[in-house]
Amino acid sequence: MTTDRLETFADGVFAIAATLLILDVALPADLDDSLGTALLHIWPQYVAYAISFATIGIIWVNHHVVLQQVERADRAFLFLNLGLLLAVAFIPFPTRVLAEFVRTSDGRAAALLYGFTMLAMSATFLSVWLYASAGRRLIRPDADPSAISGITRSFLPGLPMYAAATLVAFVSPEASAALFGLLALFYVVSSALLGRGAPVGDRPSP
Amino acid sequence: MTTDRLETFADGVFAIAATLLILDVALPADLDDSLGTALLHIWPQYVAYAISFATIGIIWVNHHVVLQQVERADRAFLFLNLGLLLAVAFIPFPTRVLAEFVRTSDGRAAALLYGFTMLAMSATFLSVWLYASAGRRLIRPDADPSAISGITRSFLPGLPMYAAATLVAFVSPEASAALFGLLALFYVVSSALLGRGAPVGDRPSP
Amino acid sequence: MTTDRLETFADGVFAIAATLLILDVALPADLDDSLGTALLHIWPQYVAYAISFATIGIIWVNHHVVLQQVERADRAFLFLNLGLLLAVAFIPFPTRVLAEFVRTSDGRAAALLYGFTMLAMSATFLSVWLYASAGRRLIRPDADPSAISGITRSFLPGLPMYAAATLVAFVSPEASAALFGLLALFYVVSSALLGRGAPVGDRPSP
Amino acid sequence: MTTDRLETFADGVFAIAATLLILDVALPADLDDSLGTALLHIWPQYVAYAISFATIGIIWVNHHVVLQQVERADRAFLFLNLGLLLAVAFIPFPTRVLAEFVRTSDGRAAALLYGFTMLAMSATFLSVWLYASAGRRLIRPDADPSAISGITRSFLPGLPMYAAATLVAFVSPEASAALFGLLALFYVVSSALLGRGAPVGDRPSP
Repeated sequence: MTTDRLETFADGVFAIAATLLILDVALPADLDDSLGTALLHIWPQYVAYAISFATIGIIWVNHHVVLQQVERADRAFLFLNLGLLLAVAFIPFPTRVLAEFVRTSDGRAAALLYGFTMLAMSATFLSVWLYASAGRRLIRPDADPSAISGITRSFLPGLPMYAAATLVAFVSPEASAALFGLLALFYVVSSALLGRGAPVGDRPSP
Repeated sequence: MTTDRLETFADGVFAIAATLLILDVALPADLDDSLGTALLHIWPQYVAYAISFATIGIIWVNHHVVLQQVERADRAFLFLNLGLLLAVAFIPFPTRVLAEFVRTSDGRAAALLYGFTMLAMSATFLSVWLYASAGRRLIRPDADPSAISGITRSFLPGLPMYAAATLVAFVSPEASAALFGLLALFYVVSSALLGRGAPVGDRPSP
Repeated sequence: MTTDRLETFADGVFAIAATLLILDVALPADLDDSLGTALLHIWPQYVAYAISFATIGIIWVNHHVVLQQVERADRAFLFLNLGLLLAVAFIPFPTRVLAEFVRTSDGRAAALLYGFTMLAMSATFLSVWLYASAGRRLIRPDADPSAISGITRSFLPGLPMYAAATLVAFVSPEASAALFGLLALFYVVSSALLGRGAPVGDRPSP
Repeated sequence: MTTDRLETFADGVFAIAATLLILDVALPADLDDSLGTALLHIWPQYVAYAISFATIGIIWVNHHVVLQQVERADRAFLFLNLGLLLAVAFIPFPTRVLAEFVRTSDGRAAALLYGFTMLAMSATFLSVWLYASAGRRLIRPDADPSAISGITRSFLPGLPMYAAATLVAFVSPEASAALFGLLALFYVVSSALLGRGAPVGDRPSP
């Protein structure tokens, strides 16, 4: 199967980027309080860790869904995927910045950085899918047309939703950060409920 | 096989989380003693490294055993697995905190943090298994019912045992940490002795 | 297939080296400015991250193209690949140094370090290919001779181009760094345009 | 194939441990000299990086050779492999310590730490092989007996050679470090020359 090694490489980047997030969960260098107080005080780091981990997990599931419909990869497709991976591997940096600064007077810049990264991720992922699906360029011949259009439809809200959550940073960085979390939570819950029973990782039998 | 890419991703997270543990084994920034003394003095870091590495290794073996019985993954199953991976990838943080603080007056908070992480790991793993096995939802048709109930039985003691070891932290953080180590050691030894000769990673032939 | 495990290991190193690059994108320890100003000020780190990520991605694609033509691996081939991986896994260090020093009076040393690493990468990659292809030592019997000579031709400009970009560091470190970026950009764009439609990751059918 | 997932996990740990080594190549926090001088001054870090990378690469090749002869894994075999991986994943720590301290008055402790780690690695690897090969417990039925005894013979010098190099630390830490490097170099060169042409990663056809 022609997309095998792309999947291996992408899964590696997804797994590493998600697991590296824990390196940014850390106590301050000097503990002013008891350890217990300090561990509670850094709760935004736990939330940021969970949101970014879930977001990368969602991208992984969606990448899986997309590649099920793709029969082969050409070089342009590989490099568009590299663009997506470059954006995904960047996520630990804005995550760390957001967790550290969201509750400070610098919160707006931190939320904007996180939002721009999510927009870059959404845009590169959209480019991966549009390149593969335009004119069914790389799509399996036996792929169900309604599955193809269904994926396109499910991709469209991503960019405007992340753009909206990013714009909210000008009003309130905390609200913007909460929206990033709600977007991830909403996706996980709705996808898990809707997808209950629907096979994933299985090519539909013809 | 429909759970292939889940296995690849999960194995990636397990391998990375285990290997990242070494980044938290470090000498203090300023050496007051000779290097030899300092290397001996940080022994709790070696022990914590070994316990957490073994624990992640056990989770990896068990995840393997579970997925052998699972025929296919739906989206809810994927997201429950993401919950488990999120807990496993978190383990380096409480490991570092426990190694640094277990012998200080802040030992209790450190042991509680470690215990809560283990409880979260146990609970998410249990949810993965119960979702897959309830009514044999995702189980292979030819799976042996006694193997299914055997896995369920082997999972049940995990939560109460980790809960007990966590509660011990209120009496003695050192005893609590020792129990976490004994739990891992007990599992490895008993599993290795019991499982000697029993094939793993092999689907039972029908 | 005999090169399977080599591919898995190499893909792992490529994915990890690329994803680790984000650990070197960091704010200064003490923020003198607002967060927004500081985030803009560290733009060389973003550029260095993107160039090195793209470079490793290109190596990954090329390694893929090479191994498609290779039927089997002997030990010498494995160790030559280890030499390539050693050079690739080294890339995060010169990337970090270049991003930090390119705009200082130490820029020349930073650009030379980056250039020497790229030269070592090109030389080890060339040795991998020449060992496999000399006398068709490890090449698949059904491999197209024009594909083999095409790969050899595409490899030859790498060393002199990186050597030239490295030498430019004696005149201007910034120009040298820009050339490293242009080399990566040029390769991605030309390869993606030329390769559009040409299957990758697929063994040519006989 | 029953050892598939063990190979994936082990290859992940090998690739990550090798690639993490670059995180310990770093400039001092305060540069007293020019960057060029500082980059030359840290040459022991480059050497330590290369030696440990090559050592992990050798372990990867050997693990590959061993698993080719193994038909199936039982739980004891999995946990013995976990012991090996625990030792391999530990290598970045003594590498960093050796590079930092080998030229100081603390060199002996640093060389001893490195040597003990190599001894632990050799001992766990030996246990993996002896458990699998004793009475051909896990060996493929069609495995060539001379291949089995050849692997056993090639394993035996490892422990005494590393023990000797470790003991040399009491006389001269630098000599001990040089021996660790020579052991890796000798193995790579001899193995590559001897193995030239001999297929690796291929099960012998029956």
